[in-house]
Amino acid sequence: VTEGTPVSALDREGATRSGFGRDHLPLGVVRPPGAAPRCAVRYGDRALDLPALVRARLVQADPALVTAPALNELLAGRDLDQLRADLQGLLDREVPLPADAVHDLADVVVGLPVAVADYVDFYSSEAHATRVGRLFRPDGDPLPEAWRHLPIGYHGRSGTVVASGTPIRRPAGQRRGADGPEHGPTRQLDYELELGVVVGRPSPPGRPVAVAEAPEHVAGIVLVNDWSARDVQAWEYRPLGPLLGKSFATSIGCWVTPLAALEPFRVPGPPQSPAVLPTLAREGRWGLDLQLEVALRSARMVRAGAPPDVVARADAAELYWTFPQQLAHLTANGAHLRTGDLCASGTISGRGDGAAGCLLEATQAGRQPLVLADGTEQTWLADGDEVTLRATAGGGAVRLAEVVGVVEPARS
Amino acid sequence: VTEGTPVSALDREGATRSGFGRDHLPLGVVRPPGAAPRCAVRYGDRALDLPALVRARLVQADPALVTAPALNELLAGRDLDQLRADLQGLLDREVPLPADAVHDLADVVVGLPVAVADYVDFYSSEAHATRVGRLFRPDGDPLPEAWRHLPIGYHGRSGTVVASGTPIRRPAGQRRGADGPEHGPTRQLDYELELGVVVGRPSPPGRPVAVAEAPEHVAGIVLVNDWSARDVQAWEYRPLGPLLGKSFATSIGCWVTPLAALEPFRVPGPPQSPAVLPTLAREGRWGLDLQLEVALRSARMVRAGAPPDVVARADAAELYWTFPQQLAHLTANGAHLRTGDLCASGTISGRGDGAAGCLLEATQAGRQPLVLADGTEQTWLADGDEVTLRATAGGGAVRLAEVVGVVEPARS
Repeated sequence: VTEGTPVSALDREGATRSGFGRDHLPLGVVRPPGAAPRCAVRYGDRALDLPALVRARLVQADPALVTAPALNELLAGRDLDQLRADLQGLLDREVPLPADAVHDLADVVVGLPVAVADYVDFYSSEAHATRVGRLFRPDGDPLPEAWRHLPIGYHGRSGTVVASGTPIRRPAGQRRGADGPEHGPTRQLDYELELGVVVGRPSPPGRPVAVAEAPEHVAGIVLVNDWSARDVQAWEYRPLGPLLGKSFATSIGCWVTPLAALEPFRVPGPPQSPAVLPTLAREGRWGLDLQLEVALRSARMVRAGAPPDVVARADAAELYWTFPQQLAHLTANGAHLRTGDLCASGTISGRGDGAAGCLLEATQAGRQPLVLADGTEQTWLADGDEVTLRATAGGGAVRLAEVVGVVEPARS
Repeated sequence: VTEGTPVSALDREGATRSGFGRDHLPLGVVRPPGAAPRCAVRYGDRALDLPALVRARLVQADPALVTAPALNELLAGRDLDQLRADLQGLLDREVPLPADAVHDLADVVVGLPVAVADYVDFYSSEAHATRVGRLFRPDGDPLPEAWRHLPIGYHGRSGTVVASGTPIRRPAGQRRGADGPEHGPTRQLDYELELGVVVGRPSPPGRPVAVAEAPEHVAGIVLVNDWSARDVQAWEYRPLGPLLGKSFATSIGCWVTPLAALEPFRVPGPPQSPAVLPTLAREGRWGLDLQLEVALRSARMVRAGAPPDVVARADAAELYWTFPQQLAHLTANGAHLRTGDLCASGTISGRGDGAAGCLLEATQAGRQPLVLADGTEQTWLADGDEVTLRATAGGGAVRLAEVVGVVEPARS
């Protein structure tokens, strides 16, 4: 390597300040102009090109895996920790990088990081499940009977998981009308603030994954927006759960944050009472102390050039069910994990005001609008609205890749 | 081609009698001894090897597609009708086939025909939904409010769809116990008699597929057994639907019957009242007059060498929602179809006695055992029980590939 980009030119301090420094190093897939998609690592506002680093013998990896258009095969292997150590060593030693190994993020298309195998969405935030339960069952116990005994969840549609930035077209669907069912564009479009784990190493069919083993199967985490059409969902969901009210789109972050980067931010989850059955008992501290927020920029604010308004803040550590518990539950019947499985937390809400992870909660099902920074009222999402999910740990030491989506008008 | 197998040696009459004659020709994947899996066509009790037929220039297909270990790429194309015509021409003209193009089914492993993309299961049999509704809501309307207005369904787990013949290990799970929840092997293992359509040609993202267009996206149909653990399902399903009670295994037939083979057996579906919304209105006759049956051979009967007992008979033409309606509904919100998507009907039951497509119905949730041919009583499935699903059309002119599964004891 004669011509190279010294690592110092990569702006180490800027990278650290951005939450994408040498202690983060999330993986993704980028497509440089006129070239094929390939695996990459995010460092500040650059993407480090893994095939180029492998060609230059600066990191070790199977060239076939890093030239794939999705991370799956790379995540399935056992040498991710080595790859991470190689990269950190490279950055620490300020080894010059070949010019084709460094892309400005602005110059590449950042795509969906994984081919999603099965997508499961849980319902693991107590504050969320409680508030939603009160809305729909004002006189009963707000939590479903099984809620404290197992992580309730459902399978979503893998085929409509999309990369952050993909526009979200307002879906049509059937809903209850005054004179019977109606079909038309949803009137109750909502976001859901969630975290998802991406499965790396698969588990063998037929063998439940114990809570203590589950983290070994997780390659990393992403933010997830499980867009929802509440009017469609309310009409269709008995008795088999949501389908069309969810299946039109689920947005995920483009960079998969390795569990290793979150090591300093592991905390105990909230206490569980009554005690859960032994097969689901927690092992290790797998609450994740991530500060999450939802930023909303209404179409009006977009037109006015106003910045987004943070409409919700919550901490992922408040999730009642941790991801190892979720994965143990998911495999308790012998179902195996496949590389690329995406298991999301369900909407994450905090207990207080301004901590509702979706509009259904925040607006009391549309009855109590939010007031945005520009003084306007917001109930459900309008065409042109932009929703951004963000997460940081350690006061910004690590920042997850944001998830952004703009609502497009319904298909005419 | 000098040495060949004359088509007459293929036993044309036997093939026709078996329901796998020249008018059927379902596609599947076989693995000959010591060789790689490849695409094949079933003819009687033989598998015709598509790569060998292509090499011998007897049929036209992209060699890369027919040497794949799953049918997906082949089904995605537009030339399936041509392939079918080529094969029928070959069989009609009694062209000698190269020896490597003909396998006895007994000599090959017949595998899962498709890599399943998304798996959706509907709930489209009125008799089934009504009987299940009466069991769980004896005082209310047995059908959910939306049932006659849209095909209710849910996403299942793609990763645990298995080929007919795969043993089904009794799953463990959490259920309601006398003193709170318990975890252990299910006590209420059940089968479900279903038909599924396999998507061939994908649909573009964002564009609903009209009822009239839906058949163009279907490559064919298979029998489906959506194994269920009723105690697990009953405890977990509120409010997001079934998860662990279903996700341990779904068995499908190994040979995909092309829609073209079912052309003579298309009938109108049952009348729909109240009329459905225009987006879901039927176009064309897409009820399928297939006689279905469930054959049960208890472990005791297996030990005694007794034949299976047919415990249920139903006709697929009774399904209230046809598959084009299901696919139109599934895509109404812009969700697209991917090659390999599996959309199953839900349990198919007839109205009369002996027409219940699952044990939940047949035994009134275990309260009223079936009496088998050997005089023994059957409620839920016991270890060692063998369940076989069968379907024929035209009095046996076409027979779908059966779906068989034997229950194995729970993992110790």
